[in-house]
Amino acid sequence: MSTTSSSTNVESTQDNTSAFYSFEPSSKTSSLLGRIENGMRNTSNTHKILISRDIGEEALQILEQERSDLRVHLQIWSEPNPADRSWLLQNVKGATGLLVTLFEKVDEELLEAAGPSLKVVSTMSVGYDHISLPAVAKRGIVLGYTPDVLTEADDRRIDWYNLVADICIMLALMASRNARIGINLVQNGEWPKAPWSPFLFCGPQLSATSVPSGTQPSKVAGFLGFGRIAQATVRRLEAFGLKNFIYSTSNSPNLNTEPESKVLDFSQSSQIPVSLATLAAHSDVLFILAPHNSSTHHIISKDFLKRMKTTAVLVNASRGALVDSDALATALKEGQIFAAGLDVVEGEPFVLQDHPLIREQNCVIIPHIGSATTETRVAMATLAARNLLQGLLGEPLEAGVDLSKYT
Amino acid sequence: MSTTSSSTNVESTQDNTSAFYSFEPSSKTSSLLGRIENGMRNTSNTHKILISRDIGEEALQILEQERSDLRVHLQIWSEPNPADRSWLLQNVKGATGLLVTLFEKVDEELLEAAGPSLKVVSTMSVGYDHISLPAVAKRGIVLGYTPDVLTEADDRRIDWYNLVADICIMLALMASRNARIGINLVQNGEWPKAPWSPFLFCGPQLSATSVPSGTQPSKVAGFLGFGRIAQATVRRLEAFGLKNFIYSTSNSPNLNTEPESKVLDFSQSSQIPVSLATLAAHSDVLFILAPHNSSTHHIISKDFLKRMKTTAVLVNASRGALVDSDALATALKEGQIFAAGLDVVEGEPFVLQDHPLIREQNCVIIPHIGSATTETRVAMATLAARNLLQGLLGEPLEAGVDLSKYT
Repeated sequence: MSTTSSSTNVESTQDNTSAFYSFEPSSKTSSLLGRIENGMRNTSNTHKILISRDIGEEALQILEQERSDLRVHLQIWSEPNPADRSWLLQNVKGATGLLVTLFEKVDEELLEAAGPSLKVVSTMSVGYDHISLPAVAKRGIVLGYTPDVLTEADDRRIDWYNLVADICIMLALMASRNARIGINLVQNGEWPKAPWSPFLFCGPQLSATSVPSGTQPSKVAGFLGFGRIAQATVRRLEAFGLKNFIYSTSNSPNLNTEPESKVLDFSQSSQIPVSLATLAAHSDVLFILAPHNSSTHHIISKDFLKRMKTTAVLVNASRGALVDSDALATALKEGQIFAAGLDVVEGEPFVLQDHPLIREQNCVIIPHIGSATTETRVAMATLAARNLLQGLLGEPLEAGVDLSKYT
Repeated sequence: MSTTSSSTNVESTQDNTSAFYSFEPSSKTSSLLGRIENGMRNTSNTHKILISRDIGEEALQILEQERSDLRVHLQIWSEPNPADRSWLLQNVKGATGLLVTLFEKVDEELLEAAGPSLKVVSTMSVGYDHISLPAVAKRGIVLGYTPDVLTEADDRRIDWYNLVADICIMLALMASRNARIGINLVQNGEWPKAPWSPFLFCGPQLSATSVPSGTQPSKVAGFLGFGRIAQATVRRLEAFGLKNFIYSTSNSPNLNTEPESKVLDFSQSSQIPVSLATLAAHSDVLFILAPHNSSTHHIISKDFLKRMKTTAVLVNASRGALVDSDALATALKEGQIFAAGLDVVEGEPFVLQDHPLIREQNCVIIPHIGSATTETRVAMATLAARNLLQGLLGEPLEAGVDLSKYT
């Protein structure tokens, strides 16, 4: 692909290559910088496409394809932080297409600034709460998005629930095996000062163990919320030898309405719905995979945590606010549970170094990277690019939002 | 269990509770300290048992069982570092039983110091290279050890290969998903400074992906060494949707004798033996699970790494010296491969902060904790305790070393 293609023109904000930019794949960075150096070479009778973020090489290639029926001029916000609102308002004027992410609000003001030229808004996101649907619809603009897979059989979409299940397994293992303590020990140069001893770094075992014979019952994996991510996690855990699964959903009795079951009977089914009290008391590893709403806010409370096993591991890969962070920090500090692995924390990303959960070394925290794989993001970005082109060409969108009720 | 049992007496080295002691389960620490406070209360006609490490509550309970036919007096080195040789030599005198780990050499000198009272040596270890078998045999001493499981059907032993397979999956996920970078970002309070952007923290996806439909071939997992740990890892990877596995063993053509295959045909089998060149070129994730010997020393060389995919992830959970650390550090720095996850490093534990692999943030290193689960170590310690008691009682050992060829 040549960046001097006659049908393609690129301009960009100046790239200040902040520290975080280096987390992005270097090939993408350099290809974008190549485009930036070319600067703006606008020509007449082209479609101006405003792009609010670096959407990656593969998506840009789609937009830059030479085609006789469409000439495009790309204008890209390429800095790692979200696009300035003022930059958007200023540059959207005269655009035919607008490609955004979850972090750019598409409202009356922005659409007014764009003017009547705007034909397509394409968002690289599963949701579209950031977009005013009535404002888009009344202007006759078409709207594309990047939904996740709808059914197991539908392989045309992003199967992000498998990615989050991967993170669930990773966090369960990391929390059980003291991975944060281990990583810090090694990177701080303290490995030489940690001679082997029988129980050094030991934690509870995720894999089912057969030793000693007959005396170790199967571990129990618990789920708060039992949707597609949970099912994908169950499939993985079965390969680790786990056979017993319990779950609570929004219909399950809460902590105070039903006491815990003393015995669980897995003879009829390996997956048993239980009360919250039973979920707390019997889970060896507990996965929090429920939506956040008023009835799940801080559902992992001081009371819930006190009912858990001292050897239990808690994993949260859904929303931070399901967990009372202070109560969890206390439970970790006092050994009420063994460890926690969190992809999400209430109030993220504003989690500072003195956050009570960061202070507990048996708390593994990663910065909400559940669905962050190159494959997924490339798939989302290229779908957003295809949606945009289809809209410009007047074709049906591969993944469009139905706006008929607003028109 | 009472620590004032008439049949049990305990003494111990003074416990200086160093920083690393805190990694051990607190219940074990406190139970041991309880015993230490009781001090030595030797009585006549008891068996003295010298124990070179803290072997945990469960194993001590076995040794302390009140029984009419056996009175024991336990003497324990309870500090987290290995027992002083001089302490061992001094205190082994008059012992009937000796319980050691891999880190205490049992040789002529120690056995001579023990004198003719010594009847049993029990080692809490899978191997027994640290024990002079002829020296033990010629004294008529019986020797117990804690072997791993021998076959899939044999569930009486430690199934540590499942534990190492767990670590393989954990490290593959951590390396792919930038876990070290994520953990450090969060614990350094930098999460607020890392605004979401489409490719932030993205890495290659372990789970098979179905997007976009038909265009993503299955990922290939490669194995250097294809024994029980590798097979247990394959079982887990299959649950992540991986279908294609390749492996090289000691019989495989090396890098220079056979060029890489351009195409792999998985239509007949999901597991294909390949040359080293093919292993390097086709593995999306590569697991190093071979023994270390002269033919595998630094087998992961500069040349091998240069043949790998830039998106590949390398996991080493066997022996550090299979990998040329300098070559790997260069490959990680220059983007020849995406990332590495290491449970072992050549020269461990003497890996200092300026080690080239520690400097590369896409290198996840944990301090050789592949088999460190509480369940395994308790199983090993209790087996070692049972072996010791059986030896004292003149019964056949549950897991004894055959010394007949030395007598």
